Amino acid sequence: CCVVSSCFRAGEEEQQAQSKKALKKQQKEAEKAAKKAEKQAKLVSVRQETPVVFDVFSLRLCLSLSWIEADRPLVRVQDLTPEKAEQQIWVRARIHTSRAKGKQCFLVLRHQQFTVQALLAVGDRASKQMVKFAANLTKESIIDVEAVVKKVEQKIESCSQQDVELHVERIFVISQSEARLPLQLEDAVRPEGEGDEVRKVDLIIINLHRNLNTTTSQAIFRLQSGICQLFRDTLINKGFVEIQTPKIISAASEGGANVFTVSYFKTSAYLAQSPQLYKQMCICADFDKVFCVGPVFRAEDSNTHRHLTEFVGLDIEMAFNYHYHEVMDSITDTMVQIFKGLCDRFQTEIQTVNKQYPSEPFKFLEPTLRLEYKEAVAMLKAAGVEMGDEEDLSTPNEKLLGRLVKEKYDTDFYVLDKYPLAVRPFYTMPDPNNPKYSNSYDMFMRGEEILSGAQRIHDAQLLTERAMHHSIDLEKIKAYIDSFRYGAPPHAGGGIGLERVTMLYLGLHNVRQTSMFPRDPKRLTP
Amino acid sequence: CCVVSSCFRAGEEEQQAQSKKALKKQQKEAEKAAKKAEKQAKLVSVRQETPVVFDVFSLRLCLSLSWIEADRPLVRVQDLTPEKAEQQIWVRARIHTSRAKGKQCFLVLRHQQFTVQALLAVGDRASKQMVKFAANLTKESIIDVEAVVKKVEQKIESCSQQDVELHVERIFVISQSEARLPLQLEDAVRPEGEGDEVRKVDLIIINLHRNLNTTTSQAIFRLQSGICQLFRDTLINKGFVEIQTPKIISAASEGGANVFTVSYFKTSAYLAQSPQLYKQMCICADFDKVFCVGPVFRAEDSNTHRHLTEFVGLDIEMAFNYHYHEVMDSITDTMVQIFKGLCDRFQTEIQTVNKQYPSEPFKFLEPTLRLEYKEAVAMLKAAGVEMGDEEDLSTPNEKLLGRLVKEKYDTDFYVLDKYPLAVRPFYTMPDPNNPKYSNSYDMFMRGEEILSGAQRIHDAQLLTERAMHHSIDLEKIKAYIDSFRYGAPPHAGGGIGLERVTMLYLGLHNVRQTSMFPRDPKRLTP
Repeated sequence: CCVVSSCFRAGEEEQQAQSKKALKKQQKEAEKAAKKAEKQAKLVSVRQETPVVFDVFSLRLCLSLSWIEADRPLVRVQDLTPEKAEQQIWVRARIHTSRAKGKQCFLVLRHQQFTVQALLAVGDRASKQMVKFAANLTKESIIDVEAVVKKVEQKIESCSQQDVELHVERIFVISQSEARLPLQLEDAVRPEGEGDEVRKVDLIIINLHRNLNTTTSQAIFRLQSGICQLFRDTLINKGFVEIQTPKIISAASEGGANVFTVSYFKTSAYLAQSPQLYKQMCICADFDKVFCVGPVFRAEDSNTHRHLTEFVGLDIEMAFNYHYHEVMDSITDTMVQIFKGLCDRFQTEIQTVNKQYPSEPFKFLEPTLRLEYKEAVAMLKAAGVEMGDEEDLSTPNEKLLGRLVKEKYDTDFYVLDKYPLAVRPFYTMPDPNNPKYSNSYDMFMRGEEILSGAQRIHDAQLLTERAMHHSIDLEKIKAYIDSFRYGAPPHAGGGIGLERVTMLYLGLHNVRQTSMFPRDPKRLTP
Repeated sequence: CCVVSSCFRAGEEEQQAQSKKALKKQQKEAEKAAKKAEKQAKLVSVRQETPVVFDVFSLRLCLSLSWIEADRPLVRVQDLTPEKAEQQIWVRARIHTSRAKGKQCFLVLRHQQFTVQALLAVGDRASKQMVKFAANLTKESIIDVEAVVKKVEQKIESCSQQDVELHVERIFVISQSEARLPLQLEDAVRPEGEGDEVRKVDLIIINLHRNLNTTTSQAIFRLQSGICQLFRDTLINKGFVEIQTPKIISAASEGGANVFTVSYFKTSAYLAQSPQLYKQMCICADFDKVFCVGPVFRAEDSNTHRHLTEFVGLDIEMAFNYHYHEVMDSITDTMVQIFKGLCDRFQTEIQTVNKQYPSEPFKFLEPTLRLEYKEAVAMLKAAGVEMGDEEDLSTPNEKLLGRLVKEKYDTDFYVLDKYPLAVRPFYTMPDPNNPKYSNSYDMFMRGEEILSGAQRIHDAQLLTERAMHHSIDLEKIKAYIDSFRYGAPPHAGGGIGLERVTMLYLGLHNVRQTSMFPRDPKRLTP
């Protein structure tokens, strides 16, 4: 009896559960239908209440947009091609230029690197008021337009989309721009040499956040994003681990010159000039191969075309088995992979930048050309330069060497190996075969240095000796030296300046063009 | 005649060139052979001169290693498996433990997360002196051993490589550790609860660079590298562009509280508390979808398990078409891709960490559970919590909510949407349907917040009104407000704390465990 009863009740519960489920399902469907109807009603009402214009200022809350879950897909400007001819579509873009002509209004709409012509004409679809309204819209305003795509007979040379134009039926204002722009975008993208260059560069930097919207800037920073990605992907494929190193540090790494001071609660601290110590600590902790991408700070009062007080460092450190060339080759190969990737995937961007800043395509060899410092000095001497064998390269000599190397080997990228020990930092490993030289290297693109690297001394005693030889206060670098007391693998590494790589790959002439928000001794904004 | 002569000379030149070539080739080959012989002689001489030990301090220059281009490949500890049985190989590793027993010496060799047993016994291959020498090597020294791989009959439970051991024939010291270690690694990896916890945590932090070498730390930071990679790969697949934002800024973004001051040449500046303004400027420049990974600085005197003064922000900002939920869904999907990727690719690391810090596997739903703030308050009230509808969540309530959600929905990850407007920053877009709420959201892992985000106000006038409502000095945020004067697409975003994600995914309890070099109000080193 008990058993039967229990069975019965179980069945009953199941029945109840089933009917509950069915009820719930019905309810849900009803709710769904109601919601859909409501949503459509809303959409319709928006369209009807705000006949052509979506007035930003009177309908403040509509600003947020987030109450319309619209199902009208937006077509991107770059996708407006003849295949879309005769289709009725929605596009969101900025008003790049606007020109009224009798009963017509011609707009050029822009999104990122792409532009398309749009036409409004008084007739069946647009009223006189609407054309007037469109003509009065401020440049740079963002609008949604409903339009029919039309093939054109003559290519529209002034736009990126040359084979079609838009016949506009409705305009919604998404965001209105102020009438007075701080910088005309057309001025910002004029080829070099045209117009007042000094004024332009200044305008470009002052109004950087506007300038970011030029086709050139879009291309530069998309390519820069690509450099970071290629750098990391290549290294991850080689078995590297990404690390995060602190930027606020308690002691200045190389003795305290050129370092920014931070007030840190009741004490003071510094901004890291390099992640080197931390990369090396990871090597001492057997991470073997590490890299990091992050800001690097230099309080140098250098006002040149290639110095920034804050830049992005692409840093590598790697334990090697027998020879530091294993590391040097890993780095040059990484650079080669970056150059190849850029060439394969960023042609549009390279060409866009070239329109404003023409330059020769970047050339490189595989494997990378490796010269010894001695050979470089000999080449310079043969070209008439007077310099000592253990003297550092001056900037003009670096550039001259770049030209000589290009002539002789036809490459814009090479490594200079075995620098004189005297011109390198104290932690650089001396050359075991010749104590006047060192196991260190620089890499160059178009004759400018982009990386400085070396085998590091991994023995506390030798490091102490070398620091003393450089008259460095041992107390200040105690933590650094102590890192090598508990077993340290032989290792080498280097740091690359991202902005310089972008600048030199594209053949640009100022590193401020490849930093979105450049910082130099005189510039802290935006 | 001239022609013939010229021909002849050309031929002669060719002949000369050919014989020169042949000569050169011969010379080269001879040089090559000589070099090879020399190299082998050197290698041999090293082997002979330094009978067993490669003396670090007397052969200082050999330290650099970089004069041997050795062709003896090194086998990694993790690759020592029964397939290699009876092979004679070279391994580079650290001495993890060392135990002498009569005429034998047992070493455990360690590299990264992997360990193997090595045996030296007095006999044909090793002298008494050599075994004694090996027994006296300091722990943590890095050595190269030449050894034969031998299968073992009984599994070696104490090592990661349980099926083989090494019979050592020669030892070279690559880097000698000091005898007194600041921290015994075995102490650092003891499971929680064993031993004096407080002392251990302190030791771990003080000796962080040693602690980095524990199997647990190796696993944590490899997984963290994976989080960054998955974050970026997912976003790049979704069409995002990586940007670099400045860390030194001229004005404090949110009115000046909790910000570090930097002396900047003759003026002073601040460290960025968030890349938000810069992300938004990129959106205003039509980049549409951007992300950045970089340090974020907070001068808060918070000494909790989850606050750092410097942490790594994974930041996202995205223009949307019609609804900020487009952005929210992009972010939750990115998190889901990260969770999946970690689960697929980092099982070894997860299990290694679990040995020391056991925790439940991380659970998530697809699509991500989305709750409204109202619902959360109702759940808390139902559980006995007294709180107002527009009150912010306290940390204990956040955690309680996490438990309630886990019970009800079986997920460790969810989004809380539509926060009360009053508890969010001035730039948060109000909810168009209910001005008491806002278009903002937080995301939680295991009941702790990992992301705070919102739709941002993209209209200068509304932004001004909201700033005034919050009594913010408009002069100080002028540059921010001005960013929206020249057309701005509606957009939303958020920032994720990398160290928190790593901590909570792994079920750890202190964010200092997931920062290699943690910074807090009391810690600035190493």
